[in-house]
Amino acid sequence: MTEQNRRMVLAERPSGMCTETTVVLETEDAPTPGEGQALVRVKYLSVDPTIRTWMNDVPGYLPPIGIGEVVRSAGIGEVVESNSARYTVGDLVFGTTGWQDYALAGEGAQAMTPVPKEIPAPVVLNVFGVTGMTAYFGLLEVGALKEGDTVVVSGAAGATGSTVGQIARIKGAGSVIGLAGSEEKCRFITEELGFDHAINYKDGNVRARLRELCPKGIDLYFDNVGGEILDTCLGQLALHGRIVLCGAISTYNDDGHAVGPSNYLNLIVRRGRMEGFIILDYVARFPEAQAAIGAWLLEGRLHHVEHVVPGLEHAPEALNLLFTGGNTGKVVVEV
Amino acid sequence: MTEQNRRMVLAERPSGMCTETTVVLETEDAPTPGEGQALVRVKYLSVDPTIRTWMNDVPGYLPPIGIGEVVRSAGIGEVVESNSARYTVGDLVFGTTGWQDYALAGEGAQAMTPVPKEIPAPVVLNVFGVTGMTAYFGLLEVGALKEGDTVVVSGAAGATGSTVGQIARIKGAGSVIGLAGSEEKCRFITEELGFDHAINYKDGNVRARLRELCPKGIDLYFDNVGGEILDTCLGQLALHGRIVLCGAISTYNDDGHAVGPSNYLNLIVRRGRMEGFIILDYVARFPEAQAAIGAWLLEGRLHHVEHVVPGLEHAPEALNLLFTGGNTGKVVVEV
Repeated sequence: MTEQNRRMVLAERPSGMCTETTVVLETEDAPTPGEGQALVRVKYLSVDPTIRTWMNDVPGYLPPIGIGEVVRSAGIGEVVESNSARYTVGDLVFGTTGWQDYALAGEGAQAMTPVPKEIPAPVVLNVFGVTGMTAYFGLLEVGALKEGDTVVVSGAAGATGSTVGQIARIKGAGSVIGLAGSEEKCRFITEELGFDHAINYKDGNVRARLRELCPKGIDLYFDNVGGEILDTCLGQLALHGRIVLCGAISTYNDDGHAVGPSNYLNLIVRRGRMEGFIILDYVARFPEAQAAIGAWLLEGRLHHVEHVVPGLEHAPEALNLLFTGGNTGKVVVEV
Repeated sequence: MTEQNRRMVLAERPSGMCTETTVVLETEDAPTPGEGQALVRVKYLSVDPTIRTWMNDVPGYLPPIGIGEVVRSAGIGEVVESNSARYTVGDLVFGTTGWQDYALAGEGAQAMTPVPKEIPAPVVLNVFGVTGMTAYFGLLEVGALKEGDTVVVSGAAGATGSTVGQIARIKGAGSVIGLAGSEEKCRFITEELGFDHAINYKDGNVRARLRELCPKGIDLYFDNVGGEILDTCLGQLALHGRIVLCGAISTYNDDGHAVGPSNYLNLIVRRGRMEGFIILDYVARFPEAQAAIGAWLLEGRLHHVEHVVPGLEHAPEALNLLFTGGNTGKVVVEV
């Protein structure tokens, strides 16, 4: 008997958060793998802010998700049937599975890559996956971290931010300051993850606190949130300061046009640089980062936290967590 | 008899353009050079947009001009009296003369450098001075121009912009597009200076014209104006595009806060970079640029235009020309 495939399909473009009518559950027969394809039983989904941007009808680095299409997402699954020498039944593979029970693995854009079974899948999706890679290359390559730098990270209790701050510490930053949205998160990043300082951006004056903690200005700001915090950090940039644009989670739910950072002219005064990147450009260098991260994990120098949400049907709520700040660490859905 | 020194003094901080009450003429005795100093009779003043920013009470890369102080400005003058082995009577020197008849040359911040007498002073202030240096290093170092690049320059009929576009052509850009504020200026930059295309930003849809002329997007945008045009260019950046922030002349007369470029998130999508610079950081490398520019002038490959305004007392109007677009090429005041 053919298995049933539950598919979480984009029913309408959300305005703000995902609601009950944004994504709907449909059930159909699991697909049959053709020649050169394999059938993958999806186990875990990586819940990333970028998924929300794909739900808007705006072309980005990937096309928008079409209405009626399964929500695009990275994930890990097990090969359960294979018509390809590339995939062996029983393998765990990582790829663009989408929010569904069964996905097809193949060639090109459909290709999936094997992942080790010794490491729990949520951890693979976190520090060994796109999240860890984004932190590593964003901080070290795009941001060109130097020893002694004063580093500020927003979304610091989130998956990427928490890893960025820790790598900055490992790599000899002078001071690492994290911005997070609760006292609990602030304690977590300083006491558990070794950040030097934390600022609860919901409580008190971010600008004044940054001035206090960064008397010589900010050498490197790793931006996950955009909006006012980006503008404030631009205003306090040190000479030759760098801003790494990773995301703008504070704006992804906005309907209208994002507000631009009015302090951008400080890039002239401070001879600064603001640069964006997409981690897909670094795929060929992932092994280098994975080796470094693996070593830090073994040495107990890098901590990782996963926030596992059970149930495919709860994927939209899991995505919303990123925007309400309801998570600490990497959000993963257990299908 | 001691000579009289006419000094153009900042009387009040302007709101918008300089008016009759912004800068007032005062006359006093010319200063007497102390030990290690020389007296310089100022001949020509370099009229640069940055002077307007120094009139605001906002700290920048230099402190604001104080109320009651002579307006800060670069200029060229002749040494008429010297108590320093460094300065010889009859020498032409370049330095921060200010808007006045007589300035003191000395050491440190007061230092002035000899300039050749064979080249007319307005030309020295243009392509051999800060203007030419800004164009050269901004385009080649900060912008990292590559052969084949699609280059867009705003303020293209102005001193810096006109030089940027020509250097881009000399260095093998694929296409050089200039934005200017009149049909006459557009004809000038294409017919006289060799720009490939010009867009009159006051007439028609800049966004649509740029899309037409840059079908693959903008590889390098050299920004002299800020505001909406910066935002439009950000929105049309090519993959790995670079934006060189040189100035934001469209905003310098604004009282309020500048509006930030809302399309900045395209820096992520396009893996782009936006970087500012201050030409003073390149002083040690000026000779390299001056040699290249000198050669291009001799070969007839680089054109320069100076717009000379006679009379120290007209310096404020000369400055306003930069903002009304009343000039083509480098504005210089003949004292």
